[in-house]
Amino acid sequence: MKISELARLIDGIVEGSDDIEINGLSGIEAAKPGDLTFAMNENRLAGAEKSGASCILTDKLLRKSTKTLIRVTNPKLSFLLVYNKFNTPKSRVSFVHPTATLSESADIGKNVWIGPNVIIEDNVIIGDGTIIEGNSVIKKGTEVGGFCHLYPNVTLYENVKLHKNVILHSGVVVGSDGFGYVKDKDKIYKFPQLGKVIIEENVEIGANTTIDRGSLSDTVIGSGSKIDNLCQIAHNVKTGRNMLMAAQCGISGSTTVGDNLIMGGQSGIIDNITIGDNVTIASKTGVIGNIASGSVVWGLPARPIGQTKRQMAVVSWLTDNFKSISKLLK
Amino acid sequence: MKISELARLIDGIVEGSDDIEINGLSGIEAAKPGDLTFAMNENRLAGAEKSGASCILTDKLLRKSTKTLIRVTNPKLSFLLVYNKFNTPKSRVSFVHPTATLSESADIGKNVWIGPNVIIEDNVIIGDGTIIEGNSVIKKGTEVGGFCHLYPNVTLYENVKLHKNVILHSGVVVGSDGFGYVKDKDKIYKFPQLGKVIIEENVEIGANTTIDRGSLSDTVIGSGSKIDNLCQIAHNVKTGRNMLMAAQCGISGSTTVGDNLIMGGQSGIIDNITIGDNVTIASKTGVIGNIASGSVVWGLPARPIGQTKRQMAVVSWLTDNFKSISKLLK
Amino acid sequence: MKISELARLIDGIVEGSDDIEINGLSGIEAAKPGDLTFAMNENRLAGAEKSGASCILTDKLLRKSTKTLIRVTNPKLSFLLVYNKFNTPKSRVSFVHPTATLSESADIGKNVWIGPNVIIEDNVIIGDGTIIEGNSVIKKGTEVGGFCHLYPNVTLYENVKLHKNVILHSGVVVGSDGFGYVKDKDKIYKFPQLGKVIIEENVEIGANTTIDRGSLSDTVIGSGSKIDNLCQIAHNVKTGRNMLMAAQCGISGSTTVGDNLIMGGQSGIIDNITIGDNVTIASKTGVIGNIASGSVVWGLPARPIGQTKRQMAVVSWLTDNFKSISKLLK
Repeated sequence: MKISELARLIDGIVEGSDDIEINGLSGIEAAKPGDLTFAMNENRLAGAEKSGASCILTDKLLRKSTKTLIRVTNPKLSFLLVYNKFNTPKSRVSFVHPTATLSESADIGKNVWIGPNVIIEDNVIIGDGTIIEGNSVIKKGTEVGGFCHLYPNVTLYENVKLHKNVILHSGVVVGSDGFGYVKDKDKIYKFPQLGKVIIEENVEIGANTTIDRGSLSDTVIGSGSKIDNLCQIAHNVKTGRNMLMAAQCGISGSTTVGDNLIMGGQSGIIDNITIGDNVTIASKTGVIGNIASGSVVWGLPARPIGQTKRQMAVVSWLTDNFKSISKLLK
Repeated sequence: MKISELARLIDGIVEGSDDIEINGLSGIEAAKPGDLTFAMNENRLAGAEKSGASCILTDKLLRKSTKTLIRVTNPKLSFLLVYNKFNTPKSRVSFVHPTATLSESADIGKNVWIGPNVIIEDNVIIGDGTIIEGNSVIKKGTEVGGFCHLYPNVTLYENVKLHKNVILHSGVVVGSDGFGYVKDKDKIYKFPQLGKVIIEENVEIGANTTIDRGSLSDTVIGSGSKIDNLCQIAHNVKTGRNMLMAAQCGISGSTTVGDNLIMGGQSGIIDNITIGDNVTIASKTGVIGNIASGSVVWGLPARPIGQTKRQMAVVSWLTDNFKSISKLLK
Repeated sequence: MKISELARLIDGIVEGSDDIEINGLSGIEAAKPGDLTFAMNENRLAGAEKSGASCILTDKLLRKSTKTLIRVTNPKLSFLLVYNKFNTPKSRVSFVHPTATLSESADIGKNVWIGPNVIIEDNVIIGDGTIIEGNSVIKKGTEVGGFCHLYPNVTLYENVKLHKNVILHSGVVVGSDGFGYVKDKDKIYKFPQLGKVIIEENVEIGANTTIDRGSLSDTVIGSGSKIDNLCQIAHNVKTGRNMLMAAQCGISGSTTVGDNLIMGGQSGIIDNITIGDNVTIASKTGVIGNIASGSVVWGLPARPIGQTKRQMAVVSWLTDNFKSISKLLK
């Protein structure tokens, strides 16, 4: 496709020759002649110029280039849209591997792909166009929506409900018992974990992440949310829409989270609290109380990020001036 | 069952009409007429009153209610005991799915349930009444006690020993090699990991948690302990009885832990130290030295929780008064 | 083997009777007569003397003993070398379990062992002498080098490349999609994750660790690296040689790491930064900027460990003297 046509597709403005043919897309490191790449800042632009790429998607603020540019509002998004244009998802086909173990009472939709050694128990419902890869297990009464994709070695316990377009990566466990016990004298009793897990549409969950079922209410993951690898969602947690949770984060039991939460890696939220909408929690933060909508927090305990940085600066300054302070005090 | 009968069962005192029939148990959110629910504080009591519930389990200190109350010492425990009364565990039945791969030298007890694609290697011993769900793997010489429950996709390496009533959730790995290496010049040698893992009775282990085998001694999880999801127990660790470990915690190699340890989420303990009995470690704490029995610690590094809170308050105060301090110093 | 012969093997100096026959190796706790054990410090030496061991490997600085000593430069290394001398790895044999699902286009080397329910998809290449244990899955086009060992329930996605002598413990996932999204208004788009994962030779990866594929470039784990359980390596990360990463650590996307990195448990590194050679990151640290070669860092945020300790000491001192400081300020 010519650069001129590409530019029209993504509403971009060409700067330089628009007559070149584009045959592929690639990152800066691997770009070869005929490739389209993208650059979000001056550094990356310099890199892109040194690469073999024939054309660079960039924004409206960066400098002029020796190569042909297409200027757009969000170069990464435009790159992605071009990619999706040329890489439509494969159509889903009906297939059941002979080694799969399917209950007769399971209700399997059209064009469902079921890999080797998959186990589907009684009264499971699988929506149209869903892919369930090898060695995954779906227990009794669980419902998987249409066009979901379960990678190998996923486990869904009983009475889990996935809406459509949910992607679960390998090792994900959904519906395991919540961590609920009652201690009395020297004995620890297991509290019943009877709730469901409901995962709304367009959610993607990373490898080896675990989501526990509710105890007496349900655990809910809001639509559009993306959860990275090795995260933990405890029983009765309810998250809003479009959460972005980086790897190794956790939300403790019965906490409720608004829309658009962003959690940096290895951060955690304590149990039984409420997080507002549009909150950002930076990496490694430990949240131990409610957070108001729109807050950006960091640290242990979580505080507004400006305050945490100020405290860190003051501690540094006090340490540097420790001798003077100590002398003054005497 | 009438409220009067229920109250007798759990040694409770009825306040209000005791003539109502109870048909089910549920949390406050889902309670409908005929249901028993429970409330541990005034807030929850108000919620329970607004719910459809016909009767509320509560303690002896909360206010009177418009609904019938049963007053007990520990409402959550009493709720659980009523639940258990009406939900006796299913009796275990003998079953081996035809797709399971069982070594002839395996010694399988009575009423053992073995799901599809389970792999049981040579000289494994499985106690009576144990359930091993689909796609789980038990390697050579491992011993699983009676009435255990392995959910799907569990892996037990060689020479692991589970006592009775152990529950392992999906993705649990027990007996993987400990992280033991010797570095010499530019080479890293793997140190032999020859010990066992011993998991004592009544232990429950959450999804995707990993427990490494000992190197030259054994790794031991004390009876009654409950470990949440995504936790890590390193080689040679020995924990006491009734540990409660929340999600994403870790204990490093060769550390010894007393009875009744409580670990909040995402906390960790360094290697080769000793933790006393009845210790509580709050969320996100990093323990880097021995902890005496009875301590409650928090922070990085772990300090008595009062001290950590005082330090945080002082840092806040110093930051607020930074200008005055800075001026004074000049 | 006589002590005198053993000593010659490891270039050690015998102190005491060298005429005793050694039949086994063991740790101090389990040592019985006829056993060789080792002690790295005075405490352990005292323990070794109280044990049944007939001979103790120790270094050149520790005190004399009532038992026969063999003095060497690195007792733990020498113990390991003796162990390896008497425990040569089992020779690898050719075996494919009848329940395995192998694509006809897979290229399986000599003496490869493939366990029950293993799934090997199209165009996979498996090198000579590799072991793939039960219920593991290897997706299309992935290449596994010679003498690798995949424990049960491992998942390799498409286009992963393992060099020789790689060990993957149970639950490891390699090649899952990186956490890459573009947010635009109220929509979150999935960014293509097209890169490979390359794991160089002699790498060992612990149970339930996850390594994401690159987005537009590759994720690379340098040769000789050892990664513990429940760790996360994000897309496009490139690590140097001989990394030692303890459990529950994470490295965020597109970060580059030099040789010989050591990461203590539960530490993390932010995305898009550069870590030099020979860096040590202590437990629980949060690295949020580039780190120069040779640094030893600790804390949140990561600072040179001496500085972090000094700051902690100053905060303690300020807290202890809070009343005086407060009075002075008034």
